[in-house]
Formats: sequence, structure tokens, C-alpha cells
Amino acid sequence: MRDVLAVGAHPDDIELGCGATLLAHHAAGDRVTMLVLTGGENGPGDERGQVSRRRQEQQRAARTLGAELRWGGLRDCTVVPDSATIGIIEAALRATGADLVYVHAPDDSHQDHRAVSAATLSAARRLSRVMHYQSPSTLTFTPTVFVDVTAHLSGKLAALGAHASQVEMSAMVEPDAVVASARHWGAQARIGYAEAFAPTRMVLDLVPAPRPAGLAAVDADLVAAHRLSSLIAVPSAVPVAAG
Amino acid sequence: MRDVLAVGAHPDDIELGCGATLLAHHAAGDRVTMLVLTGGENGPGDERGQVSRRRQEQQRAARTLGAELRWGGLRDCTVVPDSATIGIIEAALRATGADLVYVHAPDDSHQDHRAVSAATLSAARRLSRVMHYQSPSTLTFTPTVFVDVTAHLSGKLAALGAHASQVEMSAMVEPDAVVASARHWGAQARIGYAEAFAPTRMVLDLVPAPRPAGLAAVDADLVAAHRLSSLIAVPSAVPVAAG
Amino acid sequence: MRDVLAVGAHPDDIELGCGATLLAHHAAGDRVTMLVLTGGENGPGDERGQVSRRRQEQQRAARTLGAELRWGGLRDCTVVPDSATIGIIEAALRATGADLVYVHAPDDSHQDHRAVSAATLSAARRLSRVMHYQSPSTLTFTPTVFVDVTAHLSGKLAALGAHASQVEMSAMVEPDAVVASARHWGAQARIGYAEAFAPTRMVLDLVPAPRPAGLAAVDADLVAAHRLSSLIAVPSAVPVAAG
Amino acid sequence: MRDVLAVGAHPDDIELGCGATLLAHHAAGDRVTMLVLTGGENGPGDERGQVSRRRQEQQRAARTLGAELRWGGLRDCTVVPDSATIGIIEAALRATGADLVYVHAPDDSHQDHRAVSAATLSAARRLSRVMHYQSPSTLTFTPTVFVDVTAHLSGKLAALGAHASQVEMSAMVEPDAVVASARHWGAQARIGYAEAFAPTRMVLDLVPAPRPAGLAAVDADLVAAHRLSSLIAVPSAVPVAAG
Amino acid sequence: MRDVLAVGAHPDDIELGCGATLLAHHAAGDRVTMLVLTGGENGPGDERGQVSRRRQEQQRAARTLGAELRWGGLRDCTVVPDSATIGIIEAALRATGADLVYVHAPDDSHQDHRAVSAATLSAARRLSRVMHYQSPSTLTFTPTVFVDVTAHLSGKLAALGAHASQVEMSAMVEPDAVVASARHWGAQARIGYAEAFAPTRMVLDLVPAPRPAGLAAVDADLVAAHRLSSLIAVPSAVPVAAG
Amino acid sequence: MRDVLAVGAHPDDIELGCGATLLAHHAAGDRVTMLVLTGGENGPGDERGQVSRRRQEQQRAARTLGAELRWGGLRDCTVVPDSATIGIIEAALRATGADLVYVHAPDDSHQDHRAVSAATLSAARRLSRVMHYQSPSTLTFTPTVFVDVTAHLSGKLAALGAHASQVEMSAMVEPDAVVASARHWGAQARIGYAEAFAPTRMVLDLVPAPRPAGLAAVDADLVAAHRLSSLIAVPSAVPVAAG
Repeated sequence: MRDVLAVGAHPDDIELGCGATLLAHHAAGDRVTMLVLTGGENGPGDERGQVSRRRQEQQRAARTLGAELRWGGLRDCTVVPDSATIGIIEAALRATGADLVYVHAPDDSHQDHRAVSAATLSAARRLSRVMHYQSPSTLTFTPTVFVDVTAHLSGKLAALGAHASQVEMSAMVEPDAVVASARHWGAQARIGYAEAFAPTRMVLDLVPAPRPAGLAAVDADLVAAHRLSSLIAVPSAVPVAAG
Repeated sequence: MRDVLAVGAHPDDIELGCGATLLAHHAAGDRVTMLVLTGGENGPGDERGQVSRRRQEQQRAARTLGAELRWGGLRDCTVVPDSATIGIIEAALRATGADLVYVHAPDDSHQDHRAVSAATLSAARRLSRVMHYQSPSTLTFTPTVFVDVTAHLSGKLAALGAHASQVEMSAMVEPDAVVASARHWGAQARIGYAEAFAPTRMVLDLVPAPRPAGLAAVDADLVAAHRLSSLIAVPSAVPVAAG
Repeated sequence: MRDVLAVGAHPDDIELGCGATLLAHHAAGDRVTMLVLTGGENGPGDERGQVSRRRQEQQRAARTLGAELRWGGLRDCTVVPDSATIGIIEAALRATGADLVYVHAPDDSHQDHRAVSAATLSAARRLSRVMHYQSPSTLTFTPTVFVDVTAHLSGKLAALGAHASQVEMSAMVEPDAVVASARHWGAQARIGYAEAFAPTRMVLDLVPAPRPAGLAAVDADLVAAHRLSSLIAVPSAVPVAAG
Repeated sequence: MRDVLAVGAHPDDIELGCGATLLAHHAAGDRVTMLVLTGGENGPGDERGQVSRRRQEQQRAARTLGAELRWGGLRDCTVVPDSATIGIIEAALRATGADLVYVHAPDDSHQDHRAVSAATLSAARRLSRVMHYQSPSTLTFTPTVFVDVTAHLSGKLAALGAHASQVEMSAMVEPDAVVASARHWGAQARIGYAEAFAPTRMVLDLVPAPRPAGLAAVDADLVAAHRLSSLIAVPSAVPVAAG
Repeated sequence: MRDVLAVGAHPDDIELGCGATLLAHHAAGDRVTMLVLTGGENGPGDERGQVSRRRQEQQRAARTLGAELRWGGLRDCTVVPDSATIGIIEAALRATGADLVYVHAPDDSHQDHRAVSAATLSAARRLSRVMHYQSPSTLTFTPTVFVDVTAHLSGKLAALGAHASQVEMSAMVEPDAVVASARHWGAQARIGYAEAFAPTRMVLDLVPAPRPAGLAAVDADLVAAHRLSSLIAVPSAVPVAAG
Repeated sequence: MRDVLAVGAHPDDIELGCGATLLAHHAAGDRVTMLVLTGGENGPGDERGQVSRRRQEQQRAARTLGAELRWGGLRDCTVVPDSATIGIIEAALRATGADLVYVHAPDDSHQDHRAVSAATLSAARRLSRVMHYQSPSTLTFTPTVFVDVTAHLSGKLAALGAHASQVEMSAMVEPDAVVASARHWGAQARIGYAEAFAPTRMVLDLVPAPRPAGLAAVDADLVAAHRLSSLIAVPSAVPVAAG
């Protein structure tokens, strides 16, 4: 079982970027947490009543994905990658024990997306698995890692559907484009439908992560043995130059 | 269990590039095959007796890695990425049923390495997992995917040691540089020692591949279910423009 | 009026890569020529009768696109970017007087595609407009220039449909993926459906090329009609996973 | 007729980056607006009287280019890509109805240039045509789209000349380097003199935008005249080193 | 003799990135200045007493490298690339007359590193030699320029050792990884041990900078001594996995 | 004193790419060798008498640059990066003892340029200094290393002038574009005129290579003289469009 953290700037960002992959993690028995940094106060048609509506929608979408939801408490369109923002993400990493993080791609025309991507790279600086997803506002994006989401595409659309206020009003979230991109990346990956990722770094599990009790006790021992021996005998001799 | 094919131009190329990863696959219960395209006839100090010696060394190295060995039968320094070379690799893919391929990075100053990389990309055009490893002659290489080889670095050095005629004589294969690069990439990956890969495309298994009998029967069903449903309901409606 | 040359390695390559754009050129009054370098002898299920069948299909597809067809006379899977191949393309450039060339992207896992791209870059070395299109086997591709093909997508599919022997048999040519990629790139370009191009160099016409008399009014109507119809019939069926 | 918006951080940035292209737009009957975000308060030798002088210079330069001028009202060396800056550019887009935007390249050592590029990408997030120009402080820049400015280079130099206070005093604005870069990019584009652009996205008009009546014939003559004169007066003086 | 300025965000950043290269400059008779922008207040285990301890450590490290030390006076984790920060670096450039600058690579997950890199590129906008070094938190980094530090690696480790409070406590500064990276880049550069640099721009001196009288002969001996000792003491201990 | 080898596919390629830099090496007391791989048999207007004429021109150009000339004996437009071509370049490296190599950039639309670049990277696989120059047919090129050629630009033009048969007839070799590119790159490098290079790898000499006795004083004067003359005679004529 793996602990996964998905980070997004606004309600529905995570669903758009990697919603089906989170469903696949859930189906695989992984524990999934979503961290939404802003409440979406400045989304289209934003007025007082909208904020709590968008928060309820996000809560419903998280349930659809089988994910726990955390809020960052920041304000839409004002996110900067400073110590405070980094601290919020660090707290989520500590609380969840996540060792795999999904977040916006760094090159994005939305200032909040860029800031969340940068702050997450800071917060996750010691993690071995950081993967970037694409948003409609992402600029350059050359993914090399894919997840087969053929079985989870309808679930992704259901999660997006929970964001009724956003989907109805924003020209940037078009369900047919969501399906089309999944098929486009699927063809790139030589499968049916895919979500696409550009890793900052991704350590593969050739020995799979331990699964829920009883399934893989043997494996768990094997992994532990390998991990224990990892840093015992590092090279220590270094050349000493003359004087 | 996964079937893995590693492709290299010359004896010892595969060991240098991904030998420890192959050991990790072997430890995870995967079936590993090495395809060495040339017999290494033109290696350093090459004379008649050398060829059979190098072939024996390669055979010993493969055993060290727990891998099956196939020869491509081509001649050192003459490899071109034409239909014949592609056919040899296609035959190995068919024979092994591999769905994960490791091969040289495309940008390499050795003409055989470039040719083998290109020919493998052709032969594996329908595969979802093609990963490139680094050679001492590789030029640009910006890896994003890593395998923790802390537990397998000594095994990699042992496999390289089997190539005594090459290691003794070539300035390009320096064991201390092998260890240093593993530590360098390990630091990049936030682990101990790593082998580094640049994927052309890599579909992740969130639901791990089925393991040897008894371990993951439940998983196997789950995977099959997902795969079966994959291409049933594709979007078929396309817009029709006015006449 | 502009003279346009589209170059492809095999029958159906050009249609897949830029078929709808060629239709848009035709609609704009431009003269379009397709140069298919091989007869497609080694396509899937290839036997004697197939070659002439594929040539007839290509002829029919060209008519669908309103394009003139030229054959390069080379043999499938043997194209190299040498003087002879370059000469064939130079002859087509001279014969057509083309000042805008469409051709495969350089980084492609099919050796013929790479060779045709390289040879075309040589042949077109003095031209100011060389644009690369994507094939299913293209590897890295980061397009920045787009053509709105909302009005021409059905025509592209019709042209692809003319290649019945290829479409039926090859897993690489999937009509739903063609539509999905057009929608994916359309979203990137902030329009409906697009074909995507990576230019080697593209000199823009701010003062448009002179048009043949009488065409402009018709065009304006045509464009309006196309725009209106653009987003009416989007793909709506999405796969539903078991449970 | 097309509506074009050029955005720059300081007086003379737009002229340097795309002044001749704006002249070409003007000659093609397009409506051109320049948005200068700061008043240039902190330019070289800056004191109280300078600001109004620089604003007058910018006004004169805009007239030279046949462009309307808008000021952003920000302060030199303090621009950040926040909601306020984005709002200023959005207002200019709304006011002009522009569907083609020119702006600084994103990778630039001047903090204002980076900020203006990022803010413009945010403001123009729904536009299909965003092109980046080069400044003397631009870092990586790999243009693929070019405009033939052979006929407009003298006009560009005249517009730059209007910025007398800047050109006299700044080592970064050297007229001979302006001409040299235009010739350098022209050689890249296989024409005489060019301005070079890296598009974030650029949807081409294969069916040209409708022109205002009566202009076409004039334009054709103008183009012919420009083409004839293009390579007559190339720079011929080269420095001669001491023996 | 050349004047060199190395800029880093925190104590020990410069030593890690280019400490051995600074030693090589010192050995070559160049004048070396280090500008450390923050006092490292927020390093690991930071409390009141720590700041002055870290400042003393940095002073000792600078002496080890034969470099003069300047402080920027900024606060850890709050650096932004604004006019104030740029002004601090400009002042150091003026004071030292440096014409070669070393600084963090631009793409780094630490916000201070990014800010210092950007601010230095602004401050050094008229300099012909700006080289970027790698930090443990650097993301993409594709160096093409190298300095042979075989003779200075022990000195680099000594300088790092002066930062006892940091090295003991931070998982990011591991001496064995420092040596490994030097060997990794050395293999890339076809020498023993190297520090690696990605230049923004680097004008080479084919006619070497004038040297102070009397130094040349000494240097020649020094170089010879270093070269002889270069590959004697390579790391030989490699980790041995259980089983 | 350094031994330098410049490699080019055809007569005049080396002069265009790095002729002024070779003059700077010569002025610095370095020994310079040019290896021209083909005799230029297929240049423009090629007939029997042309070959010997072009060889004489190349000989004269080499003398102008103070360089020794070697011929590769290959035939124009047929170069491939195979063992034979690599062997020719290896022989030149052995014969000259060169430790710095200049050669075509890898991405070039001329097949011979690509082949020569690839073969040189193979032949120089153990060298620490390999730098790529730009040709008119070079495609992507992002130089980061520059040589100040202000003092040697007239010498470069003289060397190009020796290739009268080529310069008169080829549209690709335009002297004004040569000067313009040197100024363009000079502005990038913050100097007067520059040749630009993209290194595969470049180990810097911080301790300069030992010079032959008696040269240093002369050099210092020479440099001073060149610097003074650098910006006196910039190109001032710019094309003036009609009306």
C-alpha cells in the first residue's frame, strides 16, 4: 500500500490533471489525499455564495475519487511559492506520510499553478517520486510516463461533474477535450486511454510496494532487507592532492 | 511476473547501462533476457581468440544477472538501423513476449549505440514501456526515472568483472566511475545508489504486474478486468462540417 | 494563391499528418501536391496484389483532398536520406514551385519517416517555410503552430477511409485517435479541432498571398459556415468501467 | 483586417523586439496597439525630467509605427506577474479586441521582462496567437517563426531613433546590432532581413483575414517594391584589425 | 590574473557548487570573492547561537579556498530577485571588478537558489562570463563546460568540513555524494574529477589573461604534481547487499 | 601552446564556422590543422576543372588562417559516419596530437555535415574538448561559448574570399550575413564580434596552457591593439525601402 498526495491550486485542478490515476491508486489499495490550496474564491462568476458551493463540490469530487480532502486555506490568484505555502504542503506530506506526489507542471500560464508547482517541488525536496500533470493552461509539457486510465475515465468525468459551478461556466474545462486528451495520450502510450505525466524524478518499484495484509508478506521482508543495507558501505576514500 | 528485454550493441553494454536493474527484476521474480547485437569482434586488442573469449565472458555475465542471453549476430562497428537489424530485435520481442525494454539512449557518440537505439525504437513501436540507459559514450541524457540499485550494485560489478578482457583494456569502463555514477544518480533520486533511465514511454503499473503463483491471484483478476474493458466504448461521433 | 507540397514516406502518412490542413489550403485556393516516396510495398499483409491496391487507394485519397499526387518510386522500409532521395524531392519542389512544405517530424521511430524528414530538410534548404507534422510513430513533438481544421476533419477521415487496406489492418491508424488528437491540439490552440505543426522555419505572410479573383467572397461564407458548425457534434460516448 | 497588441515592459522594448513587424501589420491594413507597462522611470540617467521626456519619445515612436499607444502605469523594475498586472493586460485585450499578441520571451535576465511575459501569457490564456520576441537581455531563444522585415527595417530604426535619451545612453541598444540580428535571422529564414519569433501558440490563417476594400491592389505594389529593394544596400563596412 | 565572483544563497552553497574550481582559480593566481546572500538563519536546527556559528564556519571555509568573503545580509528563505537583491550583487561586481561569475543553476527546487540565480543574471547582464553550478536541489542541469578539479577535491572537502553544523545535520550534503558527482562529471569530461558548469555565456580566452610575474613556473610544477596524483586513490569500497 | 583540429565536410565550411577563431588560436601561438573531408566535387557549377580549383582555393584559405591543411579524400554528398570516416578523423587526431576539436553542429540539414559531426564525436570520444560551430544549413543551435573575433573578422573574410568559385556561386555564403552573425553573437556575448560555439564538452584551462617563450609580450600588445579597433567600423548602411 502506498500513500499518495495530489496537490492542486484550485478546486477541480487535481481531477482534471490526474483524477483517473487517483482512482487507479484507490483501486490498487493505495491511500489517496488531495490538497487543494485555494478555496477557488475567484473562479468564474464568483460571489459570496459561490465559495461554500465550490468547497462542497470539491468535497463531493474527493469522495468520488475515494480520496481524503485537505484545504490549504490560500486565496485564489494570490499564491506565491514562499515559505508559508511550502509549509502548508510540508504539513500535508508529514500528515499523510506520502511518498508519491502529483502536482501541476511547472510551465503554466496561470500564476497559481506555477506557484503551487514550485512550492511542491520545495516541500517534496527529499521525496523520490514527484510527477507533474497537465492542466488546460499548461504550456510546454512533454510527458514520458503514463497511467492506463481506460477503466477509470468515467469515474474521472463523474468527479469533474461534481464541480458543476465550474464546468458550466469555464471555457477551459470541456469534457470532450478531457476525453480527447486521454485518448491522445493513450495512443502515445500504446494503450487505450491514459493520463500523462512528466516526472521530476520517479523511482520505480520493481519489487512492488507492500500490499494490504496477507497478500505480500514475503515481499515486505525482501524490501525491508534491501532498504536496510542501503547506505552501509559508501565509498569513503577520496584522492588527496599534493599539498 | 514481467518479461523484460535488455538490448545492447556490444558485450558489457547492457551490464554497464542497467545491470543492477536487471538484477532487481530477477529478484522481483521477472524473467530477464539480454540481446547482444554484436559479438564484440572489434573490441580493444581484438584478434581471433578474443571473440570466443568475449562471448564466454558475456555468457558468464548473463548468468551472474540471472538472465537468458541471445546474440544478434551482427558485426561490431557496422550496425545500421535497417530492416534486418529491426527484424532481429522484433524476433527477440516475439520470442520473449517482453513488455518492457531497456536499450541505449539515442544520443550517443558510438555509431552502433545510436543504431541499436533507433532499431529498438522501431521494433518496439507498439510496446508501452521503452527505457533508455546511459553508456560512457552517451551524449545528452536527462533521466527522470530511477531504480534503487543499492542492493544490487555489487552484483553489477560482478557481472562487469566477468568481462575481464574488456575491463582490463578499455579506458571507458572504469569501475570507480560506475559506482560514482550510481551514487550521483542516487542522490538525484533521493536514495542511496540508482541506475538512471530516460523513458521514451513508460506505462506505470499502479496495480502491480501479477507475481508468481499464489501471491496475487486477486490482483490478476483485477488487472484482467481492467484490460478487457479497455477499448470497448471509444468515442465514435465526429463532427461533420457543412458539405 | 500558394503552391504547397506535402511529403510523406508511405501511403496515408500525409493524410494522417496534415490531411485536413491540405483541405484547408485547397479551400483557400492554394495548389496542393502530395509526394509519396514509397509505394507502400511492405505495409501490413503485403503481397503482390496489395501494392497496386494501395496505390489506387492513395490516388483516391489525393482526389478527396483536392491534391495532385506524385510518387517517389522508392521501396518501403529502405529509404535513406542520400542524394538520390533528396533529388526526388528537389524535383518535386521544382516541378510544383512550392514555397511551403509539410513533412514528417524528424524524431520518429520509423526509419523511413526519419529519412524522409531529413531528406526533405536538405531538398528544401533554401525554402522559407518547412513545417513538420506528427505521425503515430513520432517521438518527441512540441508543436507551436496550428491550423484550425474544424471544418475539414470529416474530409480528413474520408481521405483516410480511402486507405481501406491499411486502416483495417494496422493497429497504428485508429480513427478515434485521429479525432482525439485533433481535439487535443485544438484545445492547446484554443480552437475546436486542430492539426499541429512544429516548424523548422515559417515565414508568415502579414500581407496575404494574392488570391485568384472571385474566390474571396465564397471563402468568407465558407469560413463562417464552418465556424458555426464547429462544436456541435463532439464525441460524447465515454467508456464505462465495470463496477 | 486584424487587431494586434504588442506588449512591452519599458519604452523602446516593443520597437526593439518587433517594431518592423508592427510596421508590416500596419502596411497590411491591421490595427496595431502598443501597451507599455512602465513609464521607464528607472532608465539610465533617470531624473525627474526624464520620465516625461521618455513618455514623449514613446509617443513619437508609436506614431512612427502607425500604432496606438497605451500605458500600463506600472513602475520600472517593480513589475510582478500578479493579478493587477494581468488585469491591465486583460483590459488592453478587451479594449482592442486583439487576437494576436506580441510580447517578451519568457527567459530573460530582466525581471520586468520575465514578469510581463508571464502576465501576458495569463491574460491571453484564451487567445490562439501569442508570439514572443527577443530583447537584448533575452536568454534562451530558439525562434521558428519569422516575418520578412526587409521593407521595414529603416522604419524600425526610425522608431528606435525616437527614443533618443535611451539609445544615446544605454549600451544594450546598439543600432548596428539591431541590423545585424535582423540579417542573422533573415539568413535563418532564407530571406533578406527578418524579425524572429518563438510562438507559444500560433494559429495560421490559410484563408486570410478579410481585408478592408481598396487596400489589396496598393499592397501588392508595395510588396513588389519592397522585394526589389531588399538586398541592394547590405552593410559592407567590416572592421579591419591592425595588420 | 582574473577577478572571479562566486555567488550563493546560503553558507556552503558555493563550496558545494564550485569550491574546487575556486581553489583552481586561486592556484592560477586569480582573485576570488565569495558573496553569500543570506546568513543561513534558517538552516537545520537553527537557533540564536547558530547564526554566528554558521557565519564563522563560512569565514573559515572562505579562508580554506583562498577567497575573500562578502555577506549579502538577506534572510534565509525570503530571497526574491528584486531590485534590492540585484543591487547587492551589482555592488559586489563593482567592488571586485569581476569579469567571471559563478552562481546557482536557474532551475532549482529551493526558492532562494532560483532567486539568487535570477538576480545574478540581472546584475551580470553586461558581463561576458556567467557560469551556473549544480546544487543538491538543482533540477534540470545539462553541463557542457568542466573544470578539472582532481588536484582540488580534497581542498573542497576541507572547505565543506568547515561547515560542521550544516554537514552533520543536513541529509542534502553528503560528502560521498560530492565525491561521486565529481567523478561522474569527470568521466563525462574524460578526465579524473570535475566540477560541471552550464554557462549562460562564456567567452573563452584563447590569448590567456596576463599572469602576475613569477607565478607561471610554480604553477607548472603544481599542475604536474596534481596530474600525477589524480587517479591513485579512487573509491574502492562498494556496498555488498545481503545475500 | 595548444594543438587544435578543425574538421569540416567541404571546402569553406571550416572558414565559415570558425575561421576567425582559428586565427585567434594562431595569434595565441597554437598549432592549427584543418581537416576537409571531401574535395568539394559536387559544389555548385561543378565540372572537372572545378575540383582542382577548389582544392587550390582551400589551400590558399588555410594559409590565410595560418593553418596546416589535411584532406579526407571522401566524395561530396556521400559522407556517412561509418568506421572508415571515423578512421580518417582518428588519424588526423593522432597525427596532430590535438586536444581541442571544432566541428559542425550535429543538427544540420546537409547530410554530409551531420555525418562529419557524428563521425568526429566518435573519433574524439576520449577528448575533453569538442566544440560545434554553426553553418548556414545548421538547424537548432543554442551556443553558450563564444570567442571574441573582433580582431580577426577581416581575416576570416579574407579566408572566405579565397574560395572565389564557391562564394560567387552559392546563395548560402553571403559575406554580409557572415558579418551580421558575428555581430549578433557578439551582442549575445556582450562583446563586439564573436564566433559562437555549442560544446559537447569543454574542459577549461584555469591554469593556461604553457606558452612558447617570447610570445607573451607580443600577444599582450596585439590584444590591446585589437580591442581598440574593435568597434570603430561598424556596418552603418541599412536598406531603405521605397517610401
